[in-house]
Amino acid sequence: MHTTPHPLDIATQLDELDEGLYRGHLSTAYANMVGPFGGTIAAVMLKAALQHPQHLGEPVSLTVNFAGPIADAEFQIQARIARTNRSTQHWIIELSQQGEIAVTATALLAVRRPGWSSAELPFPEVPAAEQVAVADLGRLTPWVSNYQLRLIEGPLTFKPEDASEQSQSRLWIRDQPARPLDFVALTSLSDAFFPRIFVRRQQPCPAGTVSMTLYYHADSETLTRVGTQEVLGCARAQQFRNGFFDQNAELWSADGELLITSSQLVYYKA
Amino acid sequence: MHTTPHPLDIATQLDELDEGLYRGHLSTAYANMVGPFGGTIAAVMLKAALQHPQHLGEPVSLTVNFAGPIADAEFQIQARIARTNRSTQHWIIELSQQGEIAVTATALLAVRRPGWSSAELPFPEVPAAEQVAVADLGRLTPWVSNYQLRLIEGPLTFKPEDASEQSQSRLWIRDQPARPLDFVALTSLSDAFFPRIFVRRQQPCPAGTVSMTLYYHADSETLTRVGTQEVLGCARAQQFRNGFFDQNAELWSADGELLITSSQLVYYKA
Repeated sequence: MHTTPHPLDIATQLDELDEGLYRGHLSTAYANMVGPFGGTIAAVMLKAALQHPQHLGEPVSLTVNFAGPIADAEFQIQARIARTNRSTQHWIIELSQQGEIAVTATALLAVRRPGWSSAELPFPEVPAAEQVAVADLGRLTPWVSNYQLRLIEGPLTFKPEDASEQSQSRLWIRDQPARPLDFVALTSLSDAFFPRIFVRRQQPCPAGTVSMTLYYHADSETLTRVGTQEVLGCARAQQFRNGFFDQNAELWSADGELLITSSQLVYYKA
Repeated sequence: MHTTPHPLDIATQLDELDEGLYRGHLSTAYANMVGPFGGTIAAVMLKAALQHPQHLGEPVSLTVNFAGPIADAEFQIQARIARTNRSTQHWIIELSQQGEIAVTATALLAVRRPGWSSAELPFPEVPAAEQVAVADLGRLTPWVSNYQLRLIEGPLTFKPEDASEQSQSRLWIRDQPARPLDFVALTSLSDAFFPRIFVRRQQPCPAGTVSMTLYYHADSETLTRVGTQEVLGCARAQQFRNGFFDQNAELWSADGELLITSSQLVYYKA
């Protein structure tokens, strides 16, 4: 049986050149207005650690810094183990093009032990995914076509009358075509929120994530349970100030499990 | 005139050994229950970049990963510029003891340009600092004695009857003795929240930050305006799950400016 690989698996494919050294290539399917969609770049940084034969456990945190422009061409990723403890492992990961660093990342993997657990943030009251219309936003920028979005709150229309005093968005989202959820897909999904400054002002302006931090609350068994179901994404900014704003976001399973929390710092010019 | 250096300046003193290579030493004044207070370690990682003759601009983001135990001894910090752009600069910083990496960090510095700004998160309604009693918590762990804390919400008593269904703390805080606020002090202050699991359960258990990310919304002029005044700290967890919980926090000036937002991932055993 022949099956076509999912666009996300093509975009995040890494060929091992040496131990911890990989070659990848940008995928036009996940192109953004300028350069690539940051979500797939974050995903491929994490994948470089997970694909390493000496990796230990599952992701618990990842920080990705977008240090410079990324050309539509081949790139190299160097993934280095900074420290391995009994049940945790720290990574330093760098993406380069033609010898110049374009992305840096640090990651923490861990073997989790069952213990006292508690969900403190409540699952938001939202309509079920099938009650929300699928948004047609593919014209905005190419990568969006790889996601099915159902917008509940915080639209992006670029109409001045939709400008808002607050930037919260809530939406149901899944890969398009559907793809079982794993850490690579979850990482990419975590960046699938439009810049909060667009939601506030409903005007286009230069904007791009400069740093993104993800905390993985879900383990692989939880992700397997979610499978190809929609996840709920919620995002909001706290402060816009002289060229940088922050964004806090969460992704939830449809049955109310908090899968991942994230924060971003985003550059803008307005 | 002879003045004694502030304990924070002693704890974060770095001697340059070579370009980007520094030697520091743990300070017993900022000792924690096990190892050092993470706040001063985060501060000294940032300082390694700020002290570098080629640094550009002011901090806008910092991620610090606590990768292994830190002994009460000398340490080395290697700060490397990953990339310098026109107005931003990315750093990779590593702290080692006896050749083994104990802390990794990435930092982004930037020259900010004035532009459209907006505070979206509202300043909390709290009593003024002088209306809140100074808490006597110095017996808990040595580093606390370097801060003056006025607890508004979310006490730490280790009495079972104070266990809570939510982990939010609010407090006024400043260096003790008073010290004018700068990026080094602000970084250290950002970690001065007790582990949220203590607030929830009011039981001691092993707990330690494994990764911390700070977004600096304030510039140096704003910090100079704050000077030696108290800042308001607010922190809460969103999810505790099988050995790791997250924490989101903010520090505000008394006149309502959001100085810094942070997120942490904390290991615990319970």
